[in-house]
Amino acid sequence: MLKSRMTRDDGRAPEEIRRRNLGALLRHVHLHGPLSRAALGTRTGLNRSTIMALTADLAAAGLVRESGLSSTGRAGRPSVVVRPESERVHVLAFDVAVDRLAAARVGLGGTIIDRRDAVRSRAGADLDVVVGVLAELGRELRDGTPPDSVCVGVGASYCGMIRPSDGMVRFGPDMGWVDQAFGAELGRRLGLDLPVLVGNEAHLGAMAEHQRGAGVGVRNLIYLHGDVGVGGGIIVDGELLDGDAGYGAELGHMMVNPYDGRPCGCGSRGCLEAEVGERALLDAADRPAGLIGREAVRAVVDAADHGDPAARDALRRIGDWLGIGVANLINLFNPGLVVFGGMLRDVYRGSAAQVRARIAENVLPVSRERVQLSVSTLGDDATLVGAAELAFAALLADPLAGARPGSSPAAAPPVTHPAG
Amino acid sequence: MLKSRMTRDDGRAPEEIRRRNLGALLRHVHLHGPLSRAALGTRTGLNRSTIMALTADLAAAGLVRESGLSSTGRAGRPSVVVRPESERVHVLAFDVAVDRLAAARVGLGGTIIDRRDAVRSRAGADLDVVVGVLAELGRELRDGTPPDSVCVGVGASYCGMIRPSDGMVRFGPDMGWVDQAFGAELGRRLGLDLPVLVGNEAHLGAMAEHQRGAGVGVRNLIYLHGDVGVGGGIIVDGELLDGDAGYGAELGHMMVNPYDGRPCGCGSRGCLEAEVGERALLDAADRPAGLIGREAVRAVVDAADHGDPAARDALRRIGDWLGIGVANLINLFNPGLVVFGGMLRDVYRGSAAQVRARIAENVLPVSRERVQLSVSTLGDDATLVGAAELAFAALLADPLAGARPGSSPAAAPPVTHPAG
Repeated sequence: MLKSRMTRDDGRAPEEIRRRNLGALLRHVHLHGPLSRAALGTRTGLNRSTIMALTADLAAAGLVRESGLSSTGRAGRPSVVVRPESERVHVLAFDVAVDRLAAARVGLGGTIIDRRDAVRSRAGADLDVVVGVLAELGRELRDGTPPDSVCVGVGASYCGMIRPSDGMVRFGPDMGWVDQAFGAELGRRLGLDLPVLVGNEAHLGAMAEHQRGAGVGVRNLIYLHGDVGVGGGIIVDGELLDGDAGYGAELGHMMVNPYDGRPCGCGSRGCLEAEVGERALLDAADRPAGLIGREAVRAVVDAADHGDPAARDALRRIGDWLGIGVANLINLFNPGLVVFGGMLRDVYRGSAAQVRARIAENVLPVSRERVQLSVSTLGDDATLVGAAELAFAALLADPLAGARPGSSPAAAPPVTHPAG
Repeated sequence: MLKSRMTRDDGRAPEEIRRRNLGALLRHVHLHGPLSRAALGTRTGLNRSTIMALTADLAAAGLVRESGLSSTGRAGRPSVVVRPESERVHVLAFDVAVDRLAAARVGLGGTIIDRRDAVRSRAGADLDVVVGVLAELGRELRDGTPPDSVCVGVGASYCGMIRPSDGMVRFGPDMGWVDQAFGAELGRRLGLDLPVLVGNEAHLGAMAEHQRGAGVGVRNLIYLHGDVGVGGGIIVDGELLDGDAGYGAELGHMMVNPYDGRPCGCGSRGCLEAEVGERALLDAADRPAGLIGREAVRAVVDAADHGDPAARDALRRIGDWLGIGVANLINLFNPGLVVFGGMLRDVYRGSAAQVRARIAENVLPVSRERVQLSVSTLGDDATLVGAAELAFAALLADPLAGARPGSSPAAAPPVTHPAG
């Protein structure tokens, strides 16, 4: 691959290498589940004695458990299996979506151990109300947590534009929020002495699909997330595209219909979101204005499946706009995979032929040679899973520091093993 | 910044660290010119003795020269200055553009030491003819090269879609090329026993502007390159966006006008390229069909400057489409800078008001808070400079290996210094 190479200086100290190796090992176990030391060696390229020293450090910090023996599948000694301490080490994850609030306790390894959901009215809600509900859900989760379990992070997904540095909601059109200190306020109300990391829902959905869903192993991926609006998360060469300030991938506001576009919530017209969002589909299918939500979208797609002409026509029109948008994105990103999430799962199910026709017509041949299309495999949990991954990021970047939050009653002992 | 962190395993061996540190030092000197050892220490974070050992290795390999003393500007000892061996170490760079062929000998440090240009007819030309002309230009450059100068790489820019692995032109619409083995053939004809690395012209223009032009220090940058067609190069977090197979950033084929779009060279209609390319402007300004080229574009912009109503109207219309395209890109990439190159320099000069109006109307407020617009500062040399950087990449990635090409008469001596 052609890369500009001027930007990375890699003068790394041994402690940093050790930290990265610890992080790499823990990340493998976190993402792929129990692995033998031999398998970890194969995946990381580290030698046997280094792996032993590092996994011993991770075990001493209470992050993994070494037990049992696994046959390596080759001739040779069976290898100790390294498992994530999923019950002992957890994060809290929150999801503020268009019509629900959700919270979960997610164990190291990615298991949702406990969860709470609350229906949310679509009417604007002020920060205080939303944070109050989330804090209460969080309290319920904490009440059910075993006393020796350590909370190592808190993440939240929000349906709007987020400043990554402090979790400020810069623009949350569904709730009418502008510059609301959501992350800071939720952190204060939770009282865990941990920062609340907040991400845009589609960014987090993209990360989740990339790490645990339809896009595992795909280095360039586009995730389209539909609800009332349409958001996007884009993975470029394995990393989330966030742009200069964290506001990248607003693909819902790519203008596709400059002439007689529908008005968009952003104040413009003809944005992809205005042409393929929930209201566009329901209007095209002549559904009454009061009918909203995921079930209403699904009913249109089901009706089309059963031959309803208005529903079929509506999906054809919406699918054509969706296809134009997706074709543009494929020309721009040359991705390996496009994933449809949120209500766009249903829309894509009902309009795949139109989307594919636009790709065939509008994408440059060499860019469509290998691209695949898929619906989200994590479904409605994609954003919540992404929020949990965000919360685990600090631990995975520096496992021994991350396992010792100041507030934790079960702080890990100091580690005295030599560097691996 | 919010990043997915699961993809990088960093178990690096000491030799790799040394290689990276050598590369980082050489890259600093290559991009920023002569620097004192003290300044290199500040920029890389490496300590004084490590810098001394590493720059001694680079000097022994004939890549840098250590000489003179520079005051560090602070109290303390003056520091030895490290200069790139620009005369001794060079690459050959080639540029196949719509209406010219160019070749240059570029010294380490980025200086164009010698160059040759040939006018190219826009009529289709077959591979053999083009490669023959380039090889002849290359021979002339070699004839003028001092005998102790080492050619460490060859790079070429091509106005089409390129497979990075082997420099195959997958699609070159201006010349009617499909799957032409340009890189391999040019390598064979040059007979230097060096691979020819080929990049898309707009990708290379983006890299050049990022490293040496309008975008130095900007981590997220969009470069639009206009000629007959419109290409793009996009820098995401300091790296070129190339996509799964190297065909990313084809922003000229973003559809902006789905209703009554002009036909595009790709076979589709309403692509950005069809609406803002050279022919769109000349048609909008009622210029005769036979009038083509950069001068014709400039004449329209100059006429508009002098108040010509048809030219002003044409630029308003073209500028509006350009603005829609740029607004979409800003919503997608949240860049710090958008750079207009090729003939879009002139178009932007004549239509900045329209472009800015579209950004104000269509870009989400938080994404337009910091974005800047600029014309290319490298001008027509952007693609050639980018081709040279591509040719230097292997040397900068592994300076001591890269300084010893098999074919070189001035191979560097083996290096026996201990690792830094």
